[in-house]
Amino acid sequence: MMNLLTTSELSVTEIYDILAEAKKFSEGAAWQPNQSSFVANLFFEPSTRTKCSFEIAERRLGLNIIPFETHSSSITKGETLYDTVRTLESIGVQAVVIRHTEDEYFKQLVGKTNVKIINAGDGCGHHPTQSLLDLLTIYEEFEHFQGLKVGIVGDLIHSRVARSNAVALHRLGAEIVFSGPKEWIDQELLQYGRYEDIDTLTETVDVLMLLRIQHERHQVGGKTVDYHQAFGLTVEREKRMKKGSIIMHPAPVNRDVEIADSLVECERSRIFKQMENGVYVRMAVLKRALQQSEGGKNNDNSHQKWSMAY
Amino acid sequence: MMNLLTTSELSVTEIYDILAEAKKFSEGAAWQPNQSSFVANLFFEPSTRTKCSFEIAERRLGLNIIPFETHSSSITKGETLYDTVRTLESIGVQAVVIRHTEDEYFKQLVGKTNVKIINAGDGCGHHPTQSLLDLLTIYEEFEHFQGLKVGIVGDLIHSRVARSNAVALHRLGAEIVFSGPKEWIDQELLQYGRYEDIDTLTETVDVLMLLRIQHERHQVGGKTVDYHQAFGLTVEREKRMKKGSIIMHPAPVNRDVEIADSLVECERSRIFKQMENGVYVRMAVLKRALQQSEGGKNNDNSHQKWSMAY
Amino acid sequence: MMNLLTTSELSVTEIYDILAEAKKFSEGAAWQPNQSSFVANLFFEPSTRTKCSFEIAERRLGLNIIPFETHSSSITKGETLYDTVRTLESIGVQAVVIRHTEDEYFKQLVGKTNVKIINAGDGCGHHPTQSLLDLLTIYEEFEHFQGLKVGIVGDLIHSRVARSNAVALHRLGAEIVFSGPKEWIDQELLQYGRYEDIDTLTETVDVLMLLRIQHERHQVGGKTVDYHQAFGLTVEREKRMKKGSIIMHPAPVNRDVEIADSLVECERSRIFKQMENGVYVRMAVLKRALQQSEGGKNNDNSHQKWSMAY
Repeated sequence: MMNLLTTSELSVTEIYDILAEAKKFSEGAAWQPNQSSFVANLFFEPSTRTKCSFEIAERRLGLNIIPFETHSSSITKGETLYDTVRTLESIGVQAVVIRHTEDEYFKQLVGKTNVKIINAGDGCGHHPTQSLLDLLTIYEEFEHFQGLKVGIVGDLIHSRVARSNAVALHRLGAEIVFSGPKEWIDQELLQYGRYEDIDTLTETVDVLMLLRIQHERHQVGGKTVDYHQAFGLTVEREKRMKKGSIIMHPAPVNRDVEIADSLVECERSRIFKQMENGVYVRMAVLKRALQQSEGGKNNDNSHQKWSMAY
Repeated sequence: MMNLLTTSELSVTEIYDILAEAKKFSEGAAWQPNQSSFVANLFFEPSTRTKCSFEIAERRLGLNIIPFETHSSSITKGETLYDTVRTLESIGVQAVVIRHTEDEYFKQLVGKTNVKIINAGDGCGHHPTQSLLDLLTIYEEFEHFQGLKVGIVGDLIHSRVARSNAVALHRLGAEIVFSGPKEWIDQELLQYGRYEDIDTLTETVDVLMLLRIQHERHQVGGKTVDYHQAFGLTVEREKRMKKGSIIMHPAPVNRDVEIADSLVECERSRIFKQMENGVYVRMAVLKRALQQSEGGKNNDNSHQKWSMAY
Repeated sequence: MMNLLTTSELSVTEIYDILAEAKKFSEGAAWQPNQSSFVANLFFEPSTRTKCSFEIAERRLGLNIIPFETHSSSITKGETLYDTVRTLESIGVQAVVIRHTEDEYFKQLVGKTNVKIINAGDGCGHHPTQSLLDLLTIYEEFEHFQGLKVGIVGDLIHSRVARSNAVALHRLGAEIVFSGPKEWIDQELLQYGRYEDIDTLTETVDVLMLLRIQHERHQVGGKTVDYHQAFGLTVEREKRMKKGSIIMHPAPVNRDVEIADSLVECERSRIFKQMENGVYVRMAVLKRALQQSEGGKNNDNSHQKWSMAY
């Protein structure tokens, strides 16, 4: 079972294994499955960035990608996700990458199909490859997590990534602090770290993780506040950041909202580096899924007369 | 001319040839065209299942697939289907797989282009690869058609597959019986087989072909009837089926309508096997089209100075 | 810098170089980049014909194509085109083919990214690969441009191709004449050639370039005129054309409007030949972009710790 469903199901050892594998891919390592392998990317919610990144990772591994257009699929005729995935399995697909609006959609699939499931985002829940690429970006910079101070700023309520990252970084020994409008931070998150004002936070963190927000202006205590001045990374705040500290953002960036336009590609910024790392992490995750698959092949149609024999 | 337009244009020998070729692919045979070949899948009506199956078949044969988005094509600017296909021919496409809402759309193409046409469904008319995959599923089970009793149940009026299957199985020597609401069966179909009540039919057939229906509830003699109880394969009916008999359905399945949820993957069910066989049949049909093409190449642009020379 | 943005930025030598390269591809030449290369086709305006042609060209060169669905991209979340292209660069894309509704959209990209930009049409401005395929079609026919008489007929106001072609052919030494409704020809165009009545023009040109029009009927001096009779290539006009002269049209054709139905594939017609040539020209343009790229690689993420190392 080498699905990838959530970051929390991964042991610390498994996280380090995936990061090590991804690092090897970043250094030019190559890997291809023993036999011609087919994958399908099922994006029931649009996300060009994540989808393109998976597509590149899949091609670098020499996989065959079956285009799957969710808007014209039988799902629109009422077919269950399970039947769709079983259909893909029947025609020879070994792994599916799924993004779906439903929280934990994968629970209806796990244990009932031999197709490997890679979660590319579910509802407001999990987005494990985004977390892993963030971890890789931090790890390649500092070569450890223990004791690093990581600040996460912005719309923490709606960010699936922020939650996963906070939990994973806490398990890996980092110190977490949050900032942004207080109404966007809930009690559950405060288990993993404390709230800090934005100026103290930016001056003291090793890693500043900015989150995308939906609206530039919002209400605080009955008056409208400009997000950039209140909680964004302004040119002034960046100047007071610690030596060696880095800036991260999951993108797409709202320039001059979460971060000043001129800082998006500044020396501290790892924003485009994160995207590059996304490809390596997805290669590692796909290798992990398909490698397992090679050993443990178990065709569900096997009680039927002929078996898939390529 | 190795187009595939309808099942009825195929001789019995040709049907057996395609099934034999498909069987070889199911056993691991490989085939690739002599030269780099390009195909395009033109789906003017959505059908993810059929399209994915063709895509897998095409890739297993090493073909290059040109993505063609019908919703943004020049067809929306009033271009004829003929001009679209000639355009694809000009840029180097050797075969097109077409699904179109118009009955016998292929009549405007045949004999006017060197591109091979593979019909993936026209209007309410034909869907030859679906018929062939059904035939393959039956043939691999029984190794003959002569004297087999095949029951076809459901929305026979609207099913292009049911018609093609009834005709083909009749030609191949099977005995056909129909069931379901009587208003869904027309006189034309009764040339090929008789009507039987659903209980007699399920107890006596070798092959039970269920058809997808549009509505769970419908009117019979002025009162609303539950389809599943009246004509569906209930758990009780399945228990009385003959030893060795099999269940088929073109999918997507309406669980607990045409067939009880728990029977979709029961031992008699060949529903996912049919999908697997779809890939082998499409490989056979594509090989048949492109093999011919290699020998009989005749470039329509040949009166013009330069010819396509790859 | 081996982008392709407009025809006018190309020197006459560069035009001949591209045509010579395209001619070699038409004669069966092969070329592949030294390393695995990734391209993305960003079509913000639909154009199946141009997109399919680029896709075929890309595959013939062995490039990996990353599907990019503009309708579901982050652009719809307000991301700038620059950030989208930088993202694609970060994940390993070497060249992008862009069609965009905005005039000269490429100005926001040039000099700020190492990704090669190939313009597949901007606003009402430029469409250089269409111009180049027209030039190739003329050149393969006559083997020179100097002194050729080229007639361009139809909706010159709205045709990006007509403008580019007029300018390029003028620079290459051809004599240009225009015809069609006078309100569709502006002063700027008349720098490059004169207006001629349709009958004189069709009888004297070596090359007749017909443009697609939007409406069959339009008003001239307060009364409705049938375009085909007034300015179209009727069967009668074609009979009076010069020996050896050819007919071109960028397609899709409105049959019996710009050209009589029976003439679309007549002996003089190079309409489908133009489409074939489009593939060769795009191969030449992609080779030009990626060849340069191999020598001058300069990774924008290079100040960051790890570099893309495939």
